[in-house]
Amino acid sequence: MHSTQNVTKKRILTGDRPTSPLHIGHLVGSLQNRVALQHSYETFVLLADVQAMTDNFADPQKVRQNVYEVMLDYLAVGLDPSAVTFMIQSQIPEIAELTVFFLNLVTVSHLRQNPTVKAEIAQKGFGQSVPAGFFVYPVSQAADITAFGAHLVPVGDDQLPMIEQTREIVRRFNSLYAPVLTEPKELLSAVPRLMGLDGEAKMSKSLGNAIFLGDSADKVAQKVMGMYTDPHHLRASDQGRVEGNPVFAYLDAFDPDKAALEAMKEHYRRGGLGDVKVKKHLLEVLEGVLAPIRARRAEYAQDRGAVQQLLRQGTARGRAEAAQTMQEARQAMGLDYFSEPADR
Amino acid sequence: MHSTQNVTKKRILTGDRPTSPLHIGHLVGSLQNRVALQHSYETFVLLADVQAMTDNFADPQKVRQNVYEVMLDYLAVGLDPSAVTFMIQSQIPEIAELTVFFLNLVTVSHLRQNPTVKAEIAQKGFGQSVPAGFFVYPVSQAADITAFGAHLVPVGDDQLPMIEQTREIVRRFNSLYAPVLTEPKELLSAVPRLMGLDGEAKMSKSLGNAIFLGDSADKVAQKVMGMYTDPHHLRASDQGRVEGNPVFAYLDAFDPDKAALEAMKEHYRRGGLGDVKVKKHLLEVLEGVLAPIRARRAEYAQDRGAVQQLLRQGTARGRAEAAQTMQEARQAMGLDYFSEPADR
Repeated sequence: MHSTQNVTKKRILTGDRPTSPLHIGHLVGSLQNRVALQHSYETFVLLADVQAMTDNFADPQKVRQNVYEVMLDYLAVGLDPSAVTFMIQSQIPEIAELTVFFLNLVTVSHLRQNPTVKAEIAQKGFGQSVPAGFFVYPVSQAADITAFGAHLVPVGDDQLPMIEQTREIVRRFNSLYAPVLTEPKELLSAVPRLMGLDGEAKMSKSLGNAIFLGDSADKVAQKVMGMYTDPHHLRASDQGRVEGNPVFAYLDAFDPDKAALEAMKEHYRRGGLGDVKVKKHLLEVLEGVLAPIRARRAEYAQDRGAVQQLLRQGTARGRAEAAQTMQEARQAMGLDYFSEPADR
Repeated sequence: MHSTQNVTKKRILTGDRPTSPLHIGHLVGSLQNRVALQHSYETFVLLADVQAMTDNFADPQKVRQNVYEVMLDYLAVGLDPSAVTFMIQSQIPEIAELTVFFLNLVTVSHLRQNPTVKAEIAQKGFGQSVPAGFFVYPVSQAADITAFGAHLVPVGDDQLPMIEQTREIVRRFNSLYAPVLTEPKELLSAVPRLMGLDGEAKMSKSLGNAIFLGDSADKVAQKVMGMYTDPHHLRASDQGRVEGNPVFAYLDAFDPDKAALEAMKEHYRRGGLGDVKVKKHLLEVLEGVLAPIRARRAEYAQDRGAVQQLLRQGTARGRAEAAQTMQEARQAMGLDYFSEPADR
């Protein structure tokens, strides 16, 4: 008897560039979403160390070390290793092979127009010294997505040009050779961006304004109590600004009691509520979220062998998928010399 | 007792883009040189189908088919399969892996200045549509050379920028990570270029002005008798021009009797020597060279299985070398996650 519920799940590809441990900005920006989706979709998560190397090639040890840190973060936030396939990009050579063939299907001037890469090149201050690897990374991303036959890629709308570039390459490949590659779609989701502890628009390790998922309770307390707030709110009795105030931005992101939060905001605005009191509340809220994550992270960190094993298994599973894709791609191009009948 | 002659041979990498069968221009331009060197050096020959795809991506069947044709040409001209390792580029994924890491070590503007690529882009009429794969092919060539640990690359002086680009990448890699890659040197040799049957500067399949190593005796006769000569040499009694006359250019390349050739040139210049007579002599000279090549080619063509086997063995041997290089490169970058002690 067949189960009527035996429906094949669509496959998601997602991942991170392992250049630093993950922080609470990642938590609200992508990790919570991945945890929510992990049982509805077949989830492949790529630790994109090769991509991280495109602008960190002078510091490979940073990349290597953060592969492990980010993996701990994944497990800590509740990505379930029995449901999720974790993979290290550099250990899957088929991605590089696909990249090389995909490079033929995109022109240099088209890459030059990619709005995301354009913005990043300006932001990173490469000047005239853009590494070719960085310049072509949208092609490498197309290979990441395609290698694992992903149907869906969870992204915010700023990442849409990347998915569109992948689709263009896949359509070109499938029409030139044979329709063997899966054309992915975006799985659009709100990707809330958490401002930094200092009120800067972006939380990041390099800005030194982040709370990491692995931070100790003391460290989190120290960071929260030192947070930037409204610079004109000098005494508790002063009227305060909620907008642009990272303390309230974090409460918006993490405080489950929205009614009480609104009341607190009102109180702050009209004066009479001190920063220390609000920060202590935020710390309590954050600890409610971070304490279990921290505990799980510490547990996994004690068993490096088990974490390595999960990476090894996931990478092997991912590699098998990528090898299958590459074999079909090779056949489609007719470059499968040794699997042919002798007289072909 | 040790042999005093047990000196390790230096390794050469050479090869071709398999986009057409090879012709007598290749014979004088590179093949005869390779045959002469094959026992003095350990020779690796790469059938560069991945590179051929960078500007033939829309016609992969042409590339695939010519891998086999070019391999027959190699064997026919006397490259000795017991001394030479023949390899198909697309079957060695480590080249693609190295390429992807090497792309980080070169800037886009540096690639844009490569004189060889610049000239080829103009010549191929890509206009604004330069495939990214073509644009970055010097990086892929650096990976070809490096993957097999080649010490020397036989080139003409027009290819020196390619070797210099490879050296720059190797030096960058070795100084950033660890000195694991071999810095290659050019093995400069005269690379005589044979003009086309029509007197055009270059012999090529696309210009339809080539004598292929696999052409039948009838075909060669037909091509030679139809060759362009001095257009003002209408009757045998007319004075004739030797310079720019492909018939004499080919005699210069292939006629071993230089004294008789000089006498024939004099006779042609002063008048009284007809084109037909010179062409018949050229045909005889060419047949002296081509008949044994043609016979060997036909023999190998009858045993496709054996040719496949040579390609398979050579590719396996080359892949083992490339895998070794890639493993050392991976270790140098620290991206060897699964070969580490658990507590590293």
